[in-house]
Amino acid sequence: MTQTVGFVGAGRMGGAIAKRIAADPAWEVFVYDPSAEALSRFEGTRARIAAAPREIAERCTYVVSSLPLPEDVDRLYSAAGIVAALHPGSVVVDLSTIDPYTGRRAAAAVEAAGATFVASPLGMGPRQAADGTLPLYLGGSSDALERAAAVLVAISKNQYVIGGVEQAYAAKLAINYVSMSNLAVLLEGFGIGAAAGIDRDLLCTLMQDGGARSFQSDVRLPWIIAGDFAPRFGIDLAQKDMRLAIDLAARYHAPAATGAAALQHFSSAQRAGLGGSDVGALWHVVGTNGSAKPA
Amino acid sequence: MTQTVGFVGAGRMGGAIAKRIAADPAWEVFVYDPSAEALSRFEGTRARIAAAPREIAERCTYVVSSLPLPEDVDRLYSAAGIVAALHPGSVVVDLSTIDPYTGRRAAAAVEAAGATFVASPLGMGPRQAADGTLPLYLGGSSDALERAAAVLVAISKNQYVIGGVEQAYAAKLAINYVSMSNLAVLLEGFGIGAAAGIDRDLLCTLMQDGGARSFQSDVRLPWIIAGDFAPRFGIDLAQKDMRLAIDLAARYHAPAATGAAALQHFSSAQRAGLGGSDVGALWHVVGTNGSAKPA
Repeated sequence: MTQTVGFVGAGRMGGAIAKRIAADPAWEVFVYDPSAEALSRFEGTRARIAAAPREIAERCTYVVSSLPLPEDVDRLYSAAGIVAALHPGSVVVDLSTIDPYTGRRAAAAVEAAGATFVASPLGMGPRQAADGTLPLYLGGSSDALERAAAVLVAISKNQYVIGGVEQAYAAKLAINYVSMSNLAVLLEGFGIGAAAGIDRDLLCTLMQDGGARSFQSDVRLPWIIAGDFAPRFGIDLAQKDMRLAIDLAARYHAPAATGAAALQHFSSAQRAGLGGSDVGALWHVVGTNGSAKPA
Repeated sequence: MTQTVGFVGAGRMGGAIAKRIAADPAWEVFVYDPSAEALSRFEGTRARIAAAPREIAERCTYVVSSLPLPEDVDRLYSAAGIVAALHPGSVVVDLSTIDPYTGRRAAAAVEAAGATFVASPLGMGPRQAADGTLPLYLGGSSDALERAAAVLVAISKNQYVIGGVEQAYAAKLAINYVSMSNLAVLLEGFGIGAAAGIDRDLLCTLMQDGGARSFQSDVRLPWIIAGDFAPRFGIDLAQKDMRLAIDLAARYHAPAATGAAALQHFSSAQRAGLGGSDVGALWHVVGTNGSAKPA
Protein backbone atom coordinates (compact mmCIF):
# COMPACT_ATOMS: atom_id res chain seq x y z
CA MET A 1 0.00 0.00 0.00
CA THR A 2 1.55 3.30 -1.02
CA GLN A 3 1.48 6.20 1.40
CA THR A 4 1.13 9.84 0.45
CA VAL A 5 3.53 12.55 1.53
CA GLY A 6 3.59 16.16 0.38
CA PHE A 7 6.41 18.66 0.74
CA VAL A 8 5.67 22.34 1.15
CA GLY A 9 9.01 23.93 0.38
CA ALA A 10 11.32 22.05 -1.94
CA GLY A 11 14.51 24.05 -1.58
CA ARG A 12 18.01 22.83 -0.85
CA MET A 13 16.97 20.65 2.13
CA GLY A 14 13.28 19.85 1.58
CA GLY A 15 13.89 19.26 -2.12
CA ALA A 16 16.72 16.81 -1.52
CA ILE A 17 14.62 14.84 0.97
CA ALA A 18 11.58 14.79 -1.31
CA LYS A 19 13.66 13.56 -4.22
CA ARG A 20 15.11 10.72 -2.19
CA ILE A 21 11.71 9.56 -0.93
CA ALA A 22 10.23 9.85 -4.44
CA ALA A 23 12.70 7.17 -5.54
CA ASP A 24 10.97 4.72 -3.16
CA PRO A 25 7.85 3.14 -4.81
CA ALA A 26 6.27 2.72 -1.36
CA TRP A 27 5.64 6.47 -1.39
CA GLU A 28 3.57 8.77 -3.55
CA VAL A 29 5.24 12.17 -3.30
CA PHE A 30 3.82 15.63 -3.97
CA VAL A 31 5.88 18.81 -3.93
CA TYR A 32 4.98 22.48 -3.80
CA ASP A 33 7.37 25.38 -4.02
CA PRO A 34 6.76 28.98 -5.12
CA SER A 35 9.96 28.79 -7.18
CA ALA A 36 9.59 27.27 -10.64
CA GLU A 37 13.32 26.63 -10.62
CA ALA A 38 13.05 24.50 -7.47
CA LEU A 39 10.22 22.51 -9.07
CA SER A 40 12.12 22.03 -12.32
CA ARG A 41 14.59 19.84 -10.43
CA PHE A 42 11.85 17.20 -10.11
CA GLU A 43 11.58 16.61 -13.86
CA GLY A 44 12.12 12.93 -14.55
CA THR A 45 11.34 11.88 -10.96
CA ARG A 46 8.18 10.16 -9.68
CA ALA A 47 7.26 13.25 -7.62
CA ARG A 48 4.11 15.13 -8.66
CA ILE A 49 3.87 18.89 -8.61
CA ALA A 50 1.09 20.39 -6.48
CA ALA A 51 -0.50 23.66 -7.56
CA ALA A 52 -0.75 24.98 -4.00
CA PRO A 53 -0.03 23.95 -0.40
CA ARG A 54 -3.77 23.33 0.05
CA GLU A 55 -3.67 20.56 -2.56
CA ILE A 56 -1.00 18.81 -0.50
CA ALA A 57 -3.12 19.08 2.66
CA GLU A 58 -6.07 17.59 0.77
CA ARG A 59 -4.25 14.72 -0.92
CA CYS A 60 -1.58 13.63 1.58
CA THR A 61 -1.59 11.75 4.87
CA TYR A 62 1.81 13.23 5.72
CA VAL A 63 2.47 16.94 5.24
CA VAL A 64 6.12 17.98 5.51
CA SER A 65 7.05 21.67 5.59
CA SER A 66 10.57 22.98 5.07
CA LEU A 67 10.41 26.76 5.00
CA PRO A 68 12.96 29.54 5.47
CA LEU A 69 11.26 31.91 7.94
CA PRO A 70 9.01 31.75 11.00
CA GLU A 71 6.61 34.02 9.09
CA ASP A 72 6.32 31.35 6.36
CA VAL A 73 5.45 28.66 8.93
CA ASP A 74 2.94 30.98 10.62
CA ARG A 75 1.21 31.65 7.31
CA LEU A 76 1.08 27.97 6.28
CA TYR A 77 -0.46 26.77 9.55
CA SER A 78 -3.16 29.43 9.82
CA ALA A 79 -6.76 29.80 8.71
CA ALA A 80 -5.53 31.50 5.54
CA GLY A 81 -3.12 28.60 5.01
CA ILE A 82 -3.75 24.86 4.97
CA VAL A 83 -5.22 24.28 8.41
CA ALA A 84 -8.83 24.01 7.20
CA ALA A 85 -7.79 21.53 4.50
CA LEU A 86 -6.00 19.07 6.83
CA HIS A 87 -7.80 15.78 7.43
CA PRO A 88 -8.30 14.64 11.00
CA GLY A 89 -5.58 12.04 11.34
CA SER A 90 -3.18 13.89 9.02
CA VAL A 91 0.37 14.08 10.31
CA VAL A 92 2.33 17.31 9.97
CA VAL A 93 6.15 17.33 10.26
CA ASP A 94 7.86 20.71 10.21
CA LEU A 95 11.56 20.65 9.27
CA SER A 96 12.05 24.43 9.41
CA THR A 97 14.50 26.18 11.72
CA ILE A 98 12.25 28.61 13.56
CA ASP A 99 11.71 30.03 17.05
CA PRO A 100 9.86 27.87 19.62
CA TYR A 101 6.98 30.35 19.94
CA THR A 102 6.04 30.18 16.27
CA GLY A 103 6.46 26.41 16.48
CA ARG A 104 4.07 26.21 19.45
CA ARG A 105 1.46 28.32 17.56
CA ALA A 106 1.72 26.13 14.47
CA ALA A 107 1.39 22.97 16.57
CA ALA A 108 -1.69 24.34 18.34
CA ALA A 109 -3.38 25.27 15.04
CA VAL A 110 -2.70 21.84 13.55
CA GLU A 111 -3.87 20.02 16.69
CA ALA A 112 -7.07 22.12 16.79
CA ALA A 113 -7.83 20.72 13.33
CA GLY A 114 -7.58 17.17 14.74
CA ALA A 115 -4.21 16.50 13.07
CA THR A 116 -0.84 15.69 14.60
CA PHE A 117 2.23 17.98 14.74
CA VAL A 118 5.88 16.99 15.07
CA ALA A 119 8.82 19.42 15.04
CA SER A 120 11.85 18.01 13.28
CA PRO A 121 14.46 20.65 12.49
CA LEU A 122 17.45 19.19 10.67
CA GLY A 123 21.16 19.08 11.31
CA MET A 124 23.97 19.06 8.74
CA GLY A 125 23.41 19.88 5.07
CA PRO A 126 22.15 18.91 1.61
CA ARG A 127 24.62 16.04 1.23
CA GLN A 128 23.22 14.30 4.31
CA ALA A 129 19.67 15.11 3.14
CA ALA A 130 20.36 13.30 -0.11
CA ASP A 131 21.91 10.22 1.47
CA GLY A 132 19.41 9.90 4.34
CA THR A 133 21.84 10.42 7.23
CA LEU A 134 20.50 13.80 8.41
CA PRO A 135 20.21 14.29 12.15
CA LEU A 136 16.53 14.92 13.04
CA TYR A 137 15.93 16.90 16.23
CA LEU A 138 12.46 15.62 17.14
CA GLY A 139 9.91 17.37 19.35
CA GLY A 140 6.38 16.27 20.16
CA SER A 141 4.34 13.92 22.35
CA SER A 142 5.21 10.24 22.20
CA ASP A 143 1.85 9.66 20.53
CA ALA A 144 2.67 12.25 17.85
CA LEU A 145 6.12 10.77 17.27
CA GLU A 146 4.56 7.33 16.85
CA ARG A 147 2.05 8.57 14.28
CA ALA A 148 4.87 10.29 12.35
CA ALA A 149 7.26 7.35 12.60
CA ALA A 150 6.86 6.10 9.00
CA VAL A 151 7.69 9.42 7.36
CA LEU A 152 10.44 10.26 9.88
CA VAL A 153 12.24 6.98 9.15
CA ALA A 154 11.89 7.70 5.44
CA ILE A 155 13.57 11.10 6.00
CA SER A 156 16.40 9.78 8.19
CA LYS A 157 17.06 7.07 10.73
CA ASN A 158 19.49 9.40 12.56
CA GLN A 159 16.95 10.65 15.11
CA TYR A 160 17.32 12.51 18.41
CA VAL A 161 14.20 12.83 20.56
CA ILE A 162 14.72 16.21 22.22
CA GLY A 163 11.45 16.73 24.13
CA GLY A 164 8.47 18.92 23.33
CA VAL A 165 8.00 20.97 20.16
CA GLU A 166 9.60 24.03 21.79
CA GLN A 167 12.67 22.10 22.93
CA ALA A 168 13.31 20.72 19.45
CA TYR A 169 13.34 24.18 17.87
CA ALA A 170 15.43 25.60 20.74
CA ALA A 171 17.97 22.78 20.38
CA LYS A 172 18.37 23.51 16.68
CA LEU A 173 18.84 27.22 17.31
CA ALA A 174 21.41 26.52 20.06
CA ILE A 175 23.35 24.20 17.73
CA ASN A 176 23.37 26.67 14.84
CA TYR A 177 24.27 29.48 17.22
CA VAL A 178 27.41 27.61 18.26
CA SER A 179 28.24 26.40 14.77
CA MET A 180 27.91 29.82 13.12
CA SER A 181 29.65 31.66 15.97
CA ASN A 182 32.50 29.14 15.73
CA LEU A 183 32.80 30.07 12.06
CA ALA A 184 33.01 33.80 12.82
CA VAL A 185 35.61 33.16 15.54
CA LEU A 186 37.63 30.90 13.25
CA LEU A 187 37.76 33.49 10.48
CA GLU A 188 38.77 36.24 12.89
CA GLY A 189 41.57 34.03 14.25
CA PHE A 190 42.61 32.95 10.78
CA GLY A 191 42.70 36.63 9.82
CA ILE A 192 45.11 37.39 12.68
CA GLY A 193 47.43 34.58 11.58
CA ALA A 194 47.22 35.55 7.92
CA ALA A 195 47.96 39.19 8.76
CA ALA A 196 51.06 38.00 10.63
CA GLY A 197 52.27 36.48 7.36
CA ILE A 198 51.79 32.82 8.23
CA ASP A 199 51.32 30.50 5.27
CA ARG A 200 47.60 29.85 4.83
CA ASP A 201 47.79 26.09 4.34
CA LEU A 202 49.94 25.78 7.46
CA LEU A 203 47.51 28.03 9.33
CA CYS A 204 44.66 25.75 8.24
CA THR A 205 46.52 22.73 9.64
CA LEU A 206 47.15 24.56 12.93
CA MET A 207 43.44 25.36 13.22
CA GLN A 208 42.58 21.67 12.70
CA ASP A 209 45.16 19.94 14.92
CA GLY A 210 44.80 21.42 18.40
CA GLY A 211 42.50 23.34 20.70
CA ALA A 212 41.12 25.47 17.82
CA ARG A 213 39.68 22.43 16.06
CA SER A 214 35.99 22.46 15.13
CA PHE A 215 33.58 21.20 12.51
CA GLN A 216 34.12 24.56 10.80
CA SER A 217 37.92 24.24 10.73
CA ASP A 218 37.75 20.62 9.58
CA VAL A 219 35.07 20.98 6.91
CA ARG A 220 34.56 24.60 5.85
CA LEU A 221 38.00 26.19 6.20
CA PRO A 222 39.52 24.14 3.34
CA TRP A 223 36.66 25.26 1.06
CA ILE A 224 37.30 28.89 2.03
CA ILE A 225 41.05 28.64 1.38
CA ALA A 226 40.29 27.04 -1.99
CA GLY A 227 37.94 29.97 -2.78
CA ASP A 228 34.95 27.61 -2.96
CA PHE A 229 31.87 29.54 -1.78
CA ALA A 230 29.24 27.30 -3.44
CA PRO A 231 26.18 27.46 -1.17
CA ARG A 232 25.73 24.55 1.23
CA PHE A 233 24.27 26.75 3.97
CA GLY A 234 23.60 30.32 2.98
CA ILE A 235 24.41 33.54 4.79
CA ASP A 236 20.76 34.71 4.74
CA LEU A 237 19.62 31.59 6.60
CA ALA A 238 22.54 31.68 9.04
CA GLN A 239 21.87 35.32 9.84
CA LYS A 240 18.22 34.48 10.52
CA ASP A 241 19.18 31.56 12.79
CA MET A 242 21.63 33.74 14.76
CA ARG A 243 18.98 36.44 15.09
CA LEU A 244 16.39 33.95 16.40
CA ALA A 245 18.88 32.31 18.79
CA ILE A 246 19.92 35.67 20.25
CA ASP A 247 16.30 36.70 20.67
CA LEU A 248 15.66 33.39 22.43
CA ALA A 249 18.66 33.90 24.73
CA ALA A 250 17.32 37.34 25.68
CA ARG A 251 13.88 35.89 26.48
CA TYR A 252 15.63 33.35 28.74
CA HIS A 253 17.79 36.13 30.31
CA ALA A 254 20.82 34.18 29.06
CA PRO A 255 24.13 35.79 27.93
CA ALA A 256 24.75 35.84 24.19
CA ALA A 257 27.31 38.61 23.78
CA THR A 258 29.78 36.55 21.77
CA GLY A 259 27.17 35.33 19.30
CA ALA A 260 25.70 38.83 19.09
CA ALA A 261 29.10 40.08 17.89
CA ALA A 262 29.27 37.22 15.38
CA LEU A 263 25.81 38.19 14.09
CA GLN A 264 27.20 41.58 13.04
CA HIS A 265 29.56 39.84 10.59
CA PHE A 266 26.65 37.96 9.01
CA SER A 267 24.67 41.20 8.69
CA SER A 268 27.73 42.90 7.15
CA ALA A 269 27.98 40.07 4.64
CA GLN A 270 24.33 40.60 3.71
CA ARG A 271 24.93 44.32 3.19
CA ALA A 272 27.85 43.36 0.95
CA GLY A 273 25.42 41.39 -1.23
CA LEU A 274 26.59 37.95 -0.08
CA GLY A 275 23.26 36.74 1.37
CA GLY A 276 22.93 33.90 -1.14
CA SER A 277 26.52 32.67 -0.79
CA ASP A 278 27.72 29.91 1.49
CA VAL A 279 28.47 31.07 5.03
CA GLY A 280 32.15 30.61 4.18
CA ALA A 281 31.86 33.89 2.26
CA LEU A 282 31.91 35.55 5.69
CA TRP A 283 35.64 35.53 4.96
CA HIS A 284 35.06 38.41 2.51
CA VAL A 285 34.00 40.68 5.39
CA VAL A 286 36.13 39.23 8.21
CA GLY A 287 39.32 38.31 6.38
CA THR A 288 42.29 40.63 6.21
CA ASN A 289 44.79 40.76 3.44
CA GLY A 290 47.77 41.05 5.72
CA SER A 291 48.74 44.37 4.19
CA ALA A 292 48.81 46.18 7.52
CA LYS A 293 52.23 45.52 9.00
CA PRO A 294 52.51 45.57 12.78
CA ALA A 295 54.29 48.46 14.44
CA MET B 1 78.26 13.08 26.88
CA THR B 2 75.56 14.73 28.98
CA GLN B 3 74.13 18.05 27.91
CA THR B 4 72.92 20.78 30.23
CA VAL B 5 69.49 22.36 30.05
CA GLY B 6 67.95 24.80 32.51
CA PHE B 7 64.31 25.74 32.90
CA VAL B 8 63.31 29.21 34.02
CA GLY B 9 59.71 28.74 35.06
CA ALA B 10 58.67 25.29 36.23
CA GLY B 11 54.90 25.66 36.39
CA ARG B 12 52.23 23.43 34.93
CA MET B 13 53.85 23.25 31.47
CA GLY B 14 57.55 24.02 31.98
CA GLY B 15 57.64 21.84 35.08
CA ALA B 16 56.10 18.83 33.32
CA ILE B 17 58.60 19.14 30.46
CA ALA B 18 61.58 19.55 32.82
CA LYS B 19 60.56 16.50 34.81
CA ARG B 20 60.28 14.34 31.71
CA ILE B 21 63.72 15.40 30.42
CA ALA B 22 65.27 14.91 33.89
CA ALA B 23 64.35 11.23 33.63
CA ASP B 24 66.74 10.93 30.64
CA PRO B 25 70.37 10.39 31.82
CA ALA B 26 71.63 12.07 28.64
CA TRP B 27 70.54 15.39 30.18
CA GLU B 28 71.60 17.30 33.24
CA VAL B 29 68.60 19.43 34.17
CA PHE B 30 68.43 22.60 36.29
CA VAL B 31 65.18 24.28 37.29
CA TYR B 32 64.37 27.68 38.70
CA ASP B 33 60.97 28.92 39.79
CA PRO B 34 60.07 31.67 42.26
CA SER B 35 57.46 29.32 43.77
CA ALA B 36 58.82 26.90 46.40
CA GLU B 37 55.75 24.74 45.81
CA ALA B 38 56.63 24.37 42.10
CA LEU B 39 60.19 23.37 43.04
CA SER B 40 59.01 20.88 45.67
CA ARG B 41 57.57 18.75 42.87
CA PHE B 42 61.16 17.96 41.79
CA GLU B 43 62.03 16.14 45.01
CA GLY B 44 63.23 12.66 44.19
CA THR B 45 64.03 13.54 40.55
CA ARG B 46 67.47 14.02 39.00
CA ALA B 47 66.76 17.71 38.40
CA ARG B 48 68.85 20.22 40.36
CA ILE B 49 67.38 23.41 41.78
CA ALA B 50 69.02 26.65 40.68
CA ALA B 51 69.14 29.57 43.09
CA ALA B 52 68.46 32.13 40.36
CA PRO B 53 67.88 32.38 36.60
CA ARG B 54 71.43 33.70 36.29
CA GLU B 55 72.82 30.38 37.60
CA ILE B 56 70.99 28.60 34.79
CA ALA B 57 72.47 30.98 32.20
CA GLU B 58 75.94 30.36 33.60
CA ARG B 59 75.74 26.55 33.87
CA CYS B 60 73.59 25.49 30.91
CA THR B 61 74.10 25.26 27.16
CA TYR B 62 70.32 25.28 26.66
CA VAL B 63 68.14 27.81 28.46
CA VAL B 64 64.41 27.17 28.28
CA SER B 65 61.94 29.77 29.56
CA SER B 66 58.26 29.09 30.24
CA LEU B 67 56.75 32.21 31.78
CA PRO B 68 53.20 33.49 32.21
CA LEU B 69 53.45 37.12 31.03
CA PRO B 70 55.25 39.18 28.38
CA GLU B 71 56.57 41.32 31.24
CA ASP B 72 58.27 38.22 32.71
CA VAL B 73 59.98 37.44 29.40
CA ASP B 74 61.03 41.06 28.99
CA ARG B 75 62.63 41.09 32.44
CA LEU B 76 64.45 37.77 31.96
CA TYR B 77 66.03 38.75 28.64
CA SER B 78 67.26 42.18 29.68
CA ALA B 79 70.45 43.62 31.18
CA ALA B 80 68.89 43.22 34.63
CA GLY B 81 68.06 39.62 33.76
CA ILE B 82 70.25 36.85 32.38
CA VAL B 83 71.52 38.36 29.14
CA ALA B 84 74.98 39.24 30.48
CA ALA B 85 75.39 35.71 31.88
CA LEU B 86 74.64 33.87 28.62
CA HIS B 87 77.64 32.22 26.95
CA PRO B 88 78.24 32.90 23.28
CA GLY B 89 76.89 29.73 21.73
CA SER B 90 74.16 29.27 24.34
CA VAL B 91 70.78 28.40 22.91
CA VAL B 92 67.64 30.01 24.30
CA VAL B 93 64.21 28.47 23.68
CA ASP B 94 61.18 30.44 24.89
CA LEU B 95 58.00 28.41 25.39
CA SER B 96 55.89 31.30 26.70
CA THR B 97 52.71 32.53 25.05
CA ILE B 98 53.47 36.21 24.51
CA ASP B 99 53.00 38.92 21.92
CA PRO B 100 55.33 39.01 18.88
CA TYR B 101 56.81 42.41 19.83
CA THR B 102 58.07 41.26 23.19
CA GLY B 103 59.33 38.09 21.51
CA ARG B 104 61.26 40.14 18.94
CA ARG B 105 62.84 42.26 21.70
CA ALA B 106 63.87 39.16 23.66
CA ALA B 107 65.36 37.56 20.54
CA ALA B 108 67.35 40.74 19.74
CA ALA B 109 68.77 40.94 23.28
CA VAL B 110 69.80 37.27 23.23
CA GLU B 111 71.34 37.55 19.77
CA ALA B 112 73.27 40.68 20.78
CA ALA B 113 74.92 38.54 23.48
CA GLY B 114 76.11 36.10 20.77
CA ALA B 115 73.56 33.44 21.72
CA THR B 116 70.73 31.90 19.70
CA PHE B 117 66.99 32.46 20.21
CA VAL B 118 64.12 30.19 19.17
CA ALA B 119 60.43 30.85 19.89
CA SER B 120 58.50 27.70 20.67
CA PRO B 121 55.09 28.38 22.18
CA LEU B 122 53.24 25.17 23.00
CA GLY B 123 49.90 23.71 22.03
CA MET B 124 47.63 21.46 24.11
CA GLY B 125 48.15 20.97 27.86
CA PRO B 126 50.01 19.39 30.79
CA ARG B 127 49.09 15.83 29.78
CA GLN B 128 50.82 16.22 26.41
CA ALA B 129 53.75 18.01 28.11
CA ALA B 130 54.25 14.97 30.34
CA ASP B 131 54.05 12.39 27.55
CA GLY B 132 56.14 14.35 25.02
CA THR B 133 53.46 14.82 22.35
CA LEU B 134 53.09 18.59 22.70
CA PRO B 135 52.77 20.56 19.49
CA LEU B 136 55.68 23.04 19.25
CA TYR B 137 55.06 26.15 17.16
CA LEU B 138 58.62 26.98 16.13
CA GLY B 139 59.93 30.36 15.03
CA GLY B 140 63.50 31.33 14.18
CA SER B 141 66.11 31.19 11.43
CA SER B 142 66.96 27.76 10.06
CA ASP B 143 70.39 28.13 11.67
CA ALA B 144 68.79 28.83 15.07
CA LEU B 145 66.40 25.89 14.70
CA GLU B 146 69.35 23.62 13.88
CA ARG B 147 71.31 24.74 16.96
CA ALA B 148 68.23 24.15 19.13
CA ALA B 149 67.35 20.79 17.55
CA ALA B 150 68.61 18.55 20.40
CA VAL B 151 66.57 20.26 23.10
CA LEU B 152 63.52 20.70 20.87
CA VAL B 153 63.40 16.99 20.12
CA ALA B 154 63.74 16.29 23.83
CA ILE B 155 60.70 18.51 24.48
CA SER B 156 58.54 17.05 21.71
CA LYS B 157 58.87 15.55 18.25
CA ASN B 158 55.52 17.08 17.29
CA GLN B 159 56.98 20.19 15.65
CA TYR B 160 55.53 22.81 13.33
CA VAL B 161 57.95 25.28 11.76
CA ILE B 162 55.85 28.44 11.52
CA GLY B 163 58.36 31.03 10.27
CA GLY B 164 60.14 33.80 12.13
CA VAL B 165 59.99 34.43 15.86
CA GLU B 166 57.05 36.85 15.44
CA GLN B 167 55.05 34.39 13.35
CA ALA B 168 55.40 31.62 15.93
CA TYR B 169 54.02 33.81 18.73
CA ALA B 170 51.26 35.16 16.46
CA ALA B 171 50.26 31.62 15.47
CA LYS B 172 49.93 30.59 19.10
CA LEU B 173 47.82 33.64 19.92
CA ALA B 174 45.57 33.02 16.89
CA ILE B 175 45.06 29.38 17.94
CA ASN B 176 44.23 30.25 21.55
CA TYR B 177 42.00 33.06 20.37
CA VAL B 178 39.90 30.58 18.40
CA SER B 179 40.01 27.87 21.05
CA MET B 180 38.96 30.14 23.93
CA SER B 181 36.34 31.99 21.87
CA ASN B 182 34.91 28.61 20.83
CA LEU B 183 34.58 27.80 24.53
CA ALA B 184 32.70 31.03 25.25
CA VAL B 185 30.40 30.45 22.28
CA LEU B 186 29.78 26.83 23.31
CA LEU B 187 28.79 27.79 26.83
CA GLU B 188 26.47 30.54 25.61
CA GLY B 189 24.79 28.05 23.24
CA PHE B 190 24.66 25.36 25.90
CA GLY B 191 23.05 27.93 28.22
CA ILE B 192 20.31 28.61 25.66
CA GLY B 193 19.55 24.91 25.35
CA ALA B 194 19.66 24.34 29.11
CA ALA B 195 17.33 27.30 29.69
CA ALA B 196 14.91 25.72 27.21
CA GLY B 197 14.78 22.69 29.51
CA ILE B 198 16.73 20.27 27.33
CA ASP B 199 18.45 17.43 29.19
CA ARG B 200 22.12 18.37 29.70
CA ASP B 201 23.63 15.03 28.66
CA LEU B 202 21.54 15.06 25.48
CA LEU B 203 22.57 18.67 24.86
CA CYS B 204 26.21 17.65 25.24
CA THR B 205 25.74 14.93 22.61
CA LEU B 206 24.08 17.42 20.25
CA MET B 207 27.02 19.81 20.65
CA GLN B 208 29.44 16.98 19.76
CA ASP B 209 27.68 15.31 16.82
CA GLY B 210 27.03 18.04 14.26
CA GLY B 211 28.02 21.49 13.11
CA ALA B 212 28.60 22.70 16.68
CA ARG B 213 31.38 20.18 17.26
CA SER B 214 34.76 21.45 18.48
CA PHE B 215 37.72 20.44 20.61
CA GLN B 216 35.94 22.28 23.44
CA SER B 217 32.67 20.34 23.02
CA ASP B 218 34.50 17.02 22.68
CA VAL B 219 37.00 17.44 25.52
CA ARG B 220 35.98 20.18 27.94
CA LEU B 221 32.16 20.12 27.90
CA PRO B 222 31.96 16.67 29.59
CA TRP B 223 34.25 17.96 32.39
CA ILE B 224 32.00 20.99 32.85
CA ILE B 225 28.81 18.89 32.99
CA ALA B 226 30.52 16.62 35.54
CA GLY B 227 31.42 19.71 37.62
CA ASP B 228 35.14 19.04 37.14
CA PHE B 229 36.95 22.40 37.09
CA ALA B 230 40.44 21.10 38.00
CA PRO B 231 42.87 23.46 36.26
CA ARG B 232 44.34 22.19 32.97
CA PHE B 233 44.41 25.67 31.45
CA GLY B 234 43.55 28.49 33.80
CA ILE B 235 41.26 31.45 33.32
CA ASP B 236 44.01 33.98 34.17
CA LEU B 237 46.22 32.67 31.34
CA ALA B 238 43.34 32.42 28.88
CA GLN B 239 42.27 35.99 29.64
CA LYS B 240 45.85 37.15 29.03
CA ASP B 241 46.05 35.24 25.72
CA MET B 242 42.73 36.71 24.54
CA ARG B 243 43.87 40.19 25.52
CA LEU B 244 47.14 39.82 23.60
CA ALA B 245 45.42 38.33 20.53
CA ILE B 246 42.88 41.16 20.42
CA ASP B 247 45.63 43.75 20.75
CA LEU B 248 47.48 42.02 17.92
CA ALA B 249 44.36 42.03 15.73
CA ALA B 250 43.96 45.76 16.33
CA ARG B 251 47.60 46.41 15.34
CA TYR B 252 46.93 44.45 12.13
CA HIS B 253 43.64 46.39 11.58
CA ALA B 254 41.90 43.00 11.68
CA PRO B 255 38.34 42.43 13.02
CA ALA B 256 38.11 40.72 16.42
CA ALA B 257 34.65 41.72 17.62
CA THR B 258 33.53 38.18 18.43
CA GLY B 259 36.62 37.36 20.46
CA ALA B 260 36.44 40.75 22.17
CA ALA B 261 32.96 39.82 23.43
CA ALA B 262 34.30 36.44 24.60
CA LEU B 263 37.09 38.24 26.48
CA GLN B 264 34.47 39.98 28.64
CA HIS B 265 33.34 36.58 29.98
CA PHE B 266 36.92 35.72 30.97
CA SER B 267 37.30 39.08 32.72
CA SER B 268 33.97 38.52 34.51
CA ALA B 269 35.21 35.12 35.68
CA GLN B 270 38.33 36.79 37.08
CA ARG B 271 36.23 39.35 38.94
CA ALA B 272 34.24 36.41 40.36
CA GLY B 273 37.47 35.03 41.81
CA LEU B 274 37.82 32.19 39.30
CA GLY B 275 41.20 33.22 37.81
CA GLY B 276 42.97 30.08 39.03
CA SER B 277 40.26 27.64 37.90
CA ASP B 278 40.18 25.77 34.63
CA VAL B 279 38.68 27.77 31.77
CA GLY B 280 35.66 25.46 32.02
CA ALA B 281 34.68 27.51 35.08
CA LEU B 282 33.59 30.17 32.58
CA TRP B 283 30.33 28.24 32.90
CA HIS B 284 29.81 29.86 36.29
CA VAL B 285 29.50 33.29 34.66
CA VAL B 286 27.95 32.28 31.29
CA GLY B 287 25.65 29.42 32.30
CA THR B 288 22.03 29.96 33.12
CA ASN B 289 20.01 27.87 35.52
CA GLY B 290 17.03 27.67 33.22
CA SER B 291 14.84 29.32 35.84
CA ALA B 292 13.70 32.08 33.51
CA LYS B 293 10.78 30.62 31.57
CA PRO B 294 10.14 32.03 28.10
CA ALA B 295 7.09 34.23 27.57
